[in-house]
Amino acid sequence: MNSVPLLTQLIQSLQCLPSIGPKSAQRMAYYLLDKNKKGALKISHLLSRAVIEIGHCQQCRTLTEDPLCCICKNEKRNSSDMICVVEMPVDLLAFEQMALFSGTYFVLMGHLSAIDGVGPDELGLNLLENRLTNGTITEIILATNPSVEGEATAFYISEMAKRFDIKVSRIAHGVPVGSELEFVDSTTLSHSFTGRIVY
Amino acid sequence: MNSVPLLTQLIQSLQCLPSIGPKSAQRMAYYLLDKNKKGALKISHLLSRAVIEIGHCQQCRTLTEDPLCCICKNEKRNSSDMICVVEMPVDLLAFEQMALFSGTYFVLMGHLSAIDGVGPDELGLNLLENRLTNGTITEIILATNPSVEGEATAFYISEMAKRFDIKVSRIAHGVPVGSELEFVDSTTLSHSFTGRIVY
Repeated sequence: MNSVPLLTQLIQSLQCLPSIGPKSAQRMAYYLLDKNKKGALKISHLLSRAVIEIGHCQQCRTLTEDPLCCICKNEKRNSSDMICVVEMPVDLLAFEQMALFSGTYFVLMGHLSAIDGVGPDELGLNLLENRLTNGTITEIILATNPSVEGEATAFYISEMAKRFDIKVSRIAHGVPVGSELEFVDSTTLSHSFTGRIVY
Repeated sequence: MNSVPLLTQLIQSLQCLPSIGPKSAQRMAYYLLDKNKKGALKISHLLSRAVIEIGHCQQCRTLTEDPLCCICKNEKRNSSDMICVVEMPVDLLAFEQMALFSGTYFVLMGHLSAIDGVGPDELGLNLLENRLTNGTITEIILATNPSVEGEATAFYISEMAKRFDIKVSRIAHGVPVGSELEFVDSTTLSHSFTGRIVY
């Protein structure tokens, strides 16, 4: 027998999950062992399979179990002349739910951050550059987060795209639909003001 | 290849965890696969081990990987003449953190609930009855939750204990320490009033 009880080890291991503290981990462990052993075994099995089988798409870097993700495999989408650049696979999912974009993506898996040692190589920008040299891409849509790092990353990629004479656009920042103007912060409001559209 | 992508299956399986919805499950899956593969393998390994190895303590019914839990194994605590009856293993942990009680526990793993088909047998009350017949127990502390089902369960056990001429006590309900009286609900306030202690 281990000196630390198995249950304690399990609770500690669950705390590595995002926004799960000791109490939530405890609750999860007791719930799985007492009420849902089948679910626990399923999670255990799928997690170990996923860690081994899931890697990055060779073209867009999103997470997938195949060499190419289902979007890059789709001939119709792959023949599009637009690339949408996002930071994380979840951002890609958000755009896919919107169901308005029919081109392909490029997932940076992060943003430029000198303090964390993340440079262009870590974001696979050489892979993106290769795709731009093919000559089939005519527009890059920059959909990085509206944070300082996200803006810096967008600027870096726009400079790169300009070298290939490719049109670069950035998603619009402004007042979210359904919000009330009085509660919108001044930076967002100034973005919505300078980016106003003429009818 | 399965028709449902492995990643989707993993995200779906994580949603069986308590208070984890689709968005949190998505976040967990991407975090584990992208940033913490080691943690993912650890969770997977410990979960499958825990499901197989962890069972109920033969004496108090809490979750443990041994035939007897560490409290029931402890000679000093086992020779105590008090049993504290709680609903769930997490309640036991809360009392252990209090570090005031040196007797043993009995974990019901639920409460009496006719609507869910939970009767005395499901709560292992025959096991508790066996312990009462030994004659070493002189007091039962009822620490079930202050809910309707918890009170009903406490009443049932108190009736059982009375048959063996054993002293029965219930943990005090009242105003929580540090709270403000104006925000305390009237039921709690009436409990604290009727249960007042004479100095």
